[in-house]
Amino acid sequence: MYKVKVFVTLRESVLDPQGTVVKSSLHSLNYQEVTDVRIGKYMELTIEKSDQPIDEAVKEMCERLLANVVIEDYRYEIEEAVAQ
Amino acid sequence: MYKVKVFVTLRESVLDPQGTVVKSSLHSLNYQEVTDVRIGKYMELTIEKSDQPIDEAVKEMCERLLANVVIEDYRYEIEEAVAQ
Repeated sequence: MYKVKVFVTLRESVLDPQGTVVKSSLHSLNYQEVTDVRIGKYMELTIEKSDQPIDEAVKEMCERLLANVVIEDYRYEIEEAVAQ
Repeated sequence: MYKVKVFVTLRESVLDPQGTVVKSSLHSLNYQEVTDVRIGKYMELTIEKSDQPIDEAVKEMCERLLANVVIEDYRYEIEEAVAQ
């Protein structure tokens, strides 16, 4: 069994309106020192072993469903876990 | 200057309908080996040095705005970065 952590972030060149709102909310809470906020998604997947190599499977899932590769970047961490 | 990564996830006991939908989408794409999906938020903050210790400031921001501590857990990583 694997525990996979997937991080999906907007590409640098893409505007992040949600991040802008969070930044101005932090400013109005008096955290003027915050100069930039970027918001992304974080996913934890639990995956059983299968015939397909895990690395290849996760890459495919990201490309096909989890990330919109036109405007988003993704990275992932795979951890082997002992079934409980 | 600090780069701070914040991870906000739903507590274990809280249902994650968005994760359930992603899981069934993955199943319909033929990734039957995925047994669980949990979806959270990932935020990257850029913060200038200030009088308040960074660790304390980030904790406060999480508690006051970034996470809903009733149903969400958060953790963060602080990295000191050289201003460019």
